[in-house]
Amino acid sequence: MDVGFIGLGAMGSAMARRLIERGHRVRVWNRSPGPADGIARMDGIRVEAPQDALCAPVAITMLANDDAVRSALLASGALRASPRGLVHVVTATISVDLAKQLEKVHEDCGLAYVAAPVLGRPDVAAQGALNVLVAGDASAIACIQPLLDAIGKKTWHISDQPHKANVAKIAANLLLASAIETMAEAITLAERHQLDPGLMMGALTGSLFSAPVYRTYGDIILNRRFEPALFKATLGLKDVNLALSAGESAGVALPVASLVHDSLLDAIAHGYGASDWAALATASARRAGLVHGTWRHRSKSSGAGGAQVD
Amino acid sequence: MDVGFIGLGAMGSAMARRLIERGHRVRVWNRSPGPADGIARMDGIRVEAPQDALCAPVAITMLANDDAVRSALLASGALRASPRGLVHVVTATISVDLAKQLEKVHEDCGLAYVAAPVLGRPDVAAQGALNVLVAGDASAIACIQPLLDAIGKKTWHISDQPHKANVAKIAANLLLASAIETMAEAITLAERHQLDPGLMMGALTGSLFSAPVYRTYGDIILNRRFEPALFKATLGLKDVNLALSAGESAGVALPVASLVHDSLLDAIAHGYGASDWAALATASARRAGLVHGTWRHRSKSSGAGGAQVD
Amino acid sequence: MDVGFIGLGAMGSAMARRLIERGHRVRVWNRSPGPADGIARMDGIRVEAPQDALCAPVAITMLANDDAVRSALLASGALRASPRGLVHVVTATISVDLAKQLEKVHEDCGLAYVAAPVLGRPDVAAQGALNVLVAGDASAIACIQPLLDAIGKKTWHISDQPHKANVAKIAANLLLASAIETMAEAITLAERHQLDPGLMMGALTGSLFSAPVYRTYGDIILNRRFEPALFKATLGLKDVNLALSAGESAGVALPVASLVHDSLLDAIAHGYGASDWAALATASARRAGLVHGTWRHRSKSSGAGGAQVD
Amino acid sequence: MDVGFIGLGAMGSAMARRLIERGHRVRVWNRSPGPADGIARMDGIRVEAPQDALCAPVAITMLANDDAVRSALLASGALRASPRGLVHVVTATISVDLAKQLEKVHEDCGLAYVAAPVLGRPDVAAQGALNVLVAGDASAIACIQPLLDAIGKKTWHISDQPHKANVAKIAANLLLASAIETMAEAITLAERHQLDPGLMMGALTGSLFSAPVYRTYGDIILNRRFEPALFKATLGLKDVNLALSAGESAGVALPVASLVHDSLLDAIAHGYGASDWAALATASARRAGLVHGTWRHRSKSSGAGGAQVD
Repeated sequence: MDVGFIGLGAMGSAMARRLIERGHRVRVWNRSPGPADGIARMDGIRVEAPQDALCAPVAITMLANDDAVRSALLASGALRASPRGLVHVVTATISVDLAKQLEKVHEDCGLAYVAAPVLGRPDVAAQGALNVLVAGDASAIACIQPLLDAIGKKTWHISDQPHKANVAKIAANLLLASAIETMAEAITLAERHQLDPGLMMGALTGSLFSAPVYRTYGDIILNRRFEPALFKATLGLKDVNLALSAGESAGVALPVASLVHDSLLDAIAHGYGASDWAALATASARRAGLVHGTWRHRSKSSGAGGAQVD
Repeated sequence: MDVGFIGLGAMGSAMARRLIERGHRVRVWNRSPGPADGIARMDGIRVEAPQDALCAPVAITMLANDDAVRSALLASGALRASPRGLVHVVTATISVDLAKQLEKVHEDCGLAYVAAPVLGRPDVAAQGALNVLVAGDASAIACIQPLLDAIGKKTWHISDQPHKANVAKIAANLLLASAIETMAEAITLAERHQLDPGLMMGALTGSLFSAPVYRTYGDIILNRRFEPALFKATLGLKDVNLALSAGESAGVALPVASLVHDSLLDAIAHGYGASDWAALATASARRAGLVHGTWRHRSKSSGAGGAQVD
Repeated sequence: MDVGFIGLGAMGSAMARRLIERGHRVRVWNRSPGPADGIARMDGIRVEAPQDALCAPVAITMLANDDAVRSALLASGALRASPRGLVHVVTATISVDLAKQLEKVHEDCGLAYVAAPVLGRPDVAAQGALNVLVAGDASAIACIQPLLDAIGKKTWHISDQPHKANVAKIAANLLLASAIETMAEAITLAERHQLDPGLMMGALTGSLFSAPVYRTYGDIILNRRFEPALFKATLGLKDVNLALSAGESAGVALPVASLVHDSLLDAIAHGYGASDWAALATASARRAGLVHGTWRHRSKSSGAGGAQVD
Repeated sequence: MDVGFIGLGAMGSAMARRLIERGHRVRVWNRSPGPADGIARMDGIRVEAPQDALCAPVAITMLANDDAVRSALLASGALRASPRGLVHVVTATISVDLAKQLEKVHEDCGLAYVAAPVLGRPDVAAQGALNVLVAGDASAIACIQPLLDAIGKKTWHISDQPHKANVAKIAANLLLASAIETMAEAITLAERHQLDPGLMMGALTGSLFSAPVYRTYGDIILNRRFEPALFKATLGLKDVNLALSAGESAGVALPVASLVHDSLLDAIAHGYGASDWAALATASARRAGLVHGTWRHRSKSSGAGGAQVD
C-alpha cells in the first residue's frame, strides 16, 4: 500500500522500517531530518512537509505526545488540508480529550480516524510483533489491516470510537506501572528481611506471575538495570498523568495512579528522569533506607559508586 | 510415608486427601471432628489429640492463622511434647514474627521446622498442582520432598531459614491484591468512558498481562462473581495486615499494601466480608458512583436491584 | 487612589466595593456587564474594555483561573498594551507556571507585577478583613499598600518574586483540604463507634485545634451544610491540581494532595461539584458505608431520603 | 483526696506531682523504683505493689501502652483484687478494644471505670493545664472532678462509655499527625521553589492556621528541632496504629492514617525512632531529594553533619 508516515522517533522508525520491509511504499516526514534520511536510504520516500505525508490514501502518525500532535497536525493546518477520504491512523499514546477533539476534526474534514496505540517497545516493533489496540470505523480498519499486520502480531478491536483505544492503552500503562511499584515494594521487603529477592521473584514469575510484565520488569528491578531506558521515567510520568486526567474527566479516582505518580516523581527528583521508568522502584528502596552506593553503581554508567544519593 | 496432619479446612482437606491418594499413611486431627471423619473414610487415620498427629516422623499443619497455630500447637503444649527428630511442615500463611518464634521453639525442642506456604486454591491442591514455597534445613526438606511432590507441581527453595518462606508468601499475596485493585481501577475507568471492559481486558490478558493472576481475577471482577469465595475478603485483609506488619518490623513502608487495605476495608464495610477478596474491586466502582443494581444483583442473592447508588 | 479593577465575581465584587467605600476611585470592567453595573451604582466607574481598566496607575485583577487570565489579559493583548509604569496587582489563585510567565511579560513591557492572592471568603473581603499574601518589587508594593489595607486586615510579605506568593497560597489551600479530609475521617470514625462527633469536635476545636480552619469546616462537616458553597468543590479540585502541578514542576511528591484529589473527585462523581468543597468529607463517610438518607436530605434539595447506601 | 497512682513516666510523674502540690494524698507505685522515690521525697507515699495503689477510693493509672496495662493490671491480677467501689481513672492512650475489655472487667468486679486520656505534654501537665477527655459514669466523674481540675485546665465530657474517650483521643492524634505531614509537604514545596518556608509559615499560622498544632509543630519542622523528643516517633507510630486498628474494627478506612503511617515508618527506617514524631516531616524532604547533611547536623546531637542519610 501507499502510506504516509509522520514521526520517526525510536518507535516510529522501527514501525516505518517494518512497513517498508513488508513491501509497502512509505512516504516519511519528521520534524528533524536525520531519521527521515535513514528511512530514505532503505527505499522510503522522504517528503518535505507534513501535508505531503498526509496526502496518501493512508497516513500513520506516531508523534510523542499531545503537544507534538497539536503542533504538527492541528496548529500547522496540515490535518485540515488533507484530502477527503484519507484514513489517518494515530498510533501515539495521547490524551482521551485530544482523541475526542481529533474525532471532531476528522469528521468535519471528511477524514477517517483510526486510533491504533500499540503495546510493545521498539525492538518488538522491529520484529512486527506489537499488540495493536485499534478503534474506529470498521471499514477504515479493514482497509488498513495489512499495515497493522505488518507491525503487529495481533490486532485487538476495542471500539468503533477511536478515543476508546486510548482509554485502553492508558489502562494498560497503569497496570504496568502498578506491577512495577508492587514488585519494588515486595523486593524491598525481601531485602530488609535478608531474603534473596531473586529467589523470591523466580518462584513468583515461575508460577502465578508468569506474564511478560513481571518477567521483564522484575528482572530490571532486581538488577537495577535502569539504563538504557526502554521507556523513560519522564514519559512514564506523562502517561500516568494521562491516566489521572482521563480519570478526572470521567469522575474516576485512581488511587494507584496517584501512588505511582508520586514514586515516579520521587525517582525523577533523584536524577532518574532519563532512566527507565522502572526506576520508580528506587523510591521504595529509599523509603526503607536501602539506597546503597552499590545500587547506584550498578544503575548508573557514571559509576559514582557509593556517592550520596540525595 | 507416615505423616501426621493437623488442620482440615478446605485447603487442608484437599492436601490430606491428595497425600492418601498417593499412598501415604496419614494420621489426621482437626479441632472439629467432621472433616477428620471424612478423611478417615478414605483410609486416613483419625487421631484423638494433636500430639497423636505430631508423633509421626513427619507432621504437616495447615492451620488458619496465627491464633490457630498459637492455640493448637503452642498454648496446648503439643509442639513441645513432640518427639525429638520430628520434621514439622507448616504450610499456613502466618506472620513473620510467629515464624521466627516457631524457629526458636523447634530449635529448643530438637525438632526440624520446615515452612512450606503454598500458592493455589483448594481445587489446585486437589490436583496436586500447587506451587510450594519452601524454607528450612536442606536435609529436612529432602526428607519430605515426596510429600511436597504429592501436593505440588513445583517446589521453590527460598532459604534455609523457615520464616523467609513466609515473607515470600506474604509478598505474593501483596502482588495479587495490587493486581486486583489496579484491574478494578482500569475497569472502572473503562466503564465511565463507555468502553466495554471485557474487550479491554481481553486485549490486555491476551498480551502483556497473560499471567493467571490477571486472567482469573480479571474474569471475576468483570462478571462480579464474588460468590462463592475462592478466598474471603476477611482473610485477604488478614494477609494484607501480615504484609503491613512484616513491613513495619523491617522498616519498610508499603504504600500499595496500605491502599489495598483501605479498599478491602471499604468492601467489608459494604457487606462483602464473606465474599471473594476480589470484591475489593467494588470500592473502586463506588468511588466513581458506579455501583448499579445490576452489579449488586449479580453479586448478592438479595438481588436488591436498583438505580445508581447516590 | 485611582485604580482599575477587572473581574467581578463574588470575591472581586466584594473587594471592589470595599475599595470604593474607602474612598478610592475605581474603574471596573467585567466580561459580563451585570456586576459592573452594580458597582457603577455605588460610585464606581464602569469602563468598556479591559485596557480602560489597565490604564490607571494601579490595576487589580481578580480573575477565576489560569484560562481567564490568559484570555482576558494575554490573548486579548490588553496587558501588553498597558502604559509603562502600571502597577498590576494579580489577586487570583493561579498556577506557578502562569505566574512565572506573567513575570516575564510584565518585565518585557515595563510593568510592575505584584502577586497578592488572598486568604478569606467574600464575606471577609466585604469587611476588609482578608489576609493578603503579597510578593513583588518592594516599591511597587509600598505604592499599593493603601489598597491592600482597604481589603485586608494584614499583609504578609512573602518574596520579591511574585510567583512565590502563589506557591504560598497553593500551600495554604493544601493545608485546608488536608484538615477537611482528616476531620472527615475522624468524624466517620466517631460515628461508626457511636461517639457523638459534635462532642468530640467541640473538645478538639476548644483545645489544640482552635484555628478558624477547624472551627469553620468542622461545623460544615458536622452539619452537612455543603450548600450554599463558600468555595465550590470543582474550584477546590482546580486548586489541588495547582498544588500537584507546582509539585511536579519542582520534583516534589505531595501524597496528601493526591489523597484529597481523590476524595474531591469522589464527591464530584456523586453530584457535589457545585457544593462546598468540604463535601469531600462525604467520600470518607461513603467508604465506611455511612451515607444515610438524612445526610443526603440535609445536603441535597432533592431530599431523596433513604436507607444505608448499599 | 486519697488517690493511688500507677505509672510514673514523664507524663505520670508530672501529673502525680501536680496532685501533691494541690494537697491530695498520693500513694504511688511504679515498676522501676526511681521515679517513685522522687515522688516520695515530695510528700507522696511510695507503696510496694500495684494493689496498694489500687486500694484507695480513687486510683489513677498512666501506663505507656496496651501491653503495660495488660501486664500491670490484668495479668498481675491486681485489678480484679481491687476493693469494690474503687473509681479507676485510666489516662493512658490505649486501644479501643482494650478499653472495651476493661469496661467488662470493671463491671464484673464492681469497680467504676473512668477513661480520661489527656491532650498535652509533660510540661503542660506540670502546670495543670492539660485538656482532659473524660468518659464514664457521671457520678464517678463527679467524684474525681477535683483531681481532674488539679491536672487539667478543662474537662471535656465525651460519653458515659469509657472507650469512647479513647476514640476521641485517637482521633486527636490523627489530626496532629496529618497537620504535621501536610506542613512538611508544604514546606518542601516552598523549599524546592526557593520560597523562604519561614515567611510562608508565618503568614499561615498568623491567619487561618493559628492553632497550637500548627505553631508548635510548624516551628519544630522549620528548625529541624526533632530532639529532644516531645513525643517519640515510635510512640507516634503506635498511636497511628491505634487509629488504623480502631478504624478496622469499625469498618472505617482512614487513608490519612495509612499515609502518615508510611511517613513515620520511613522516618524510623532512617534513624529517627527516638526523635520527635514531627521527624516524619523528613520523609517528605527525602522524597524530593532535599535531605542535606545540614539537616542531619541540626537535628542530631551526634553531630554527624554531612553524613549519608541512608
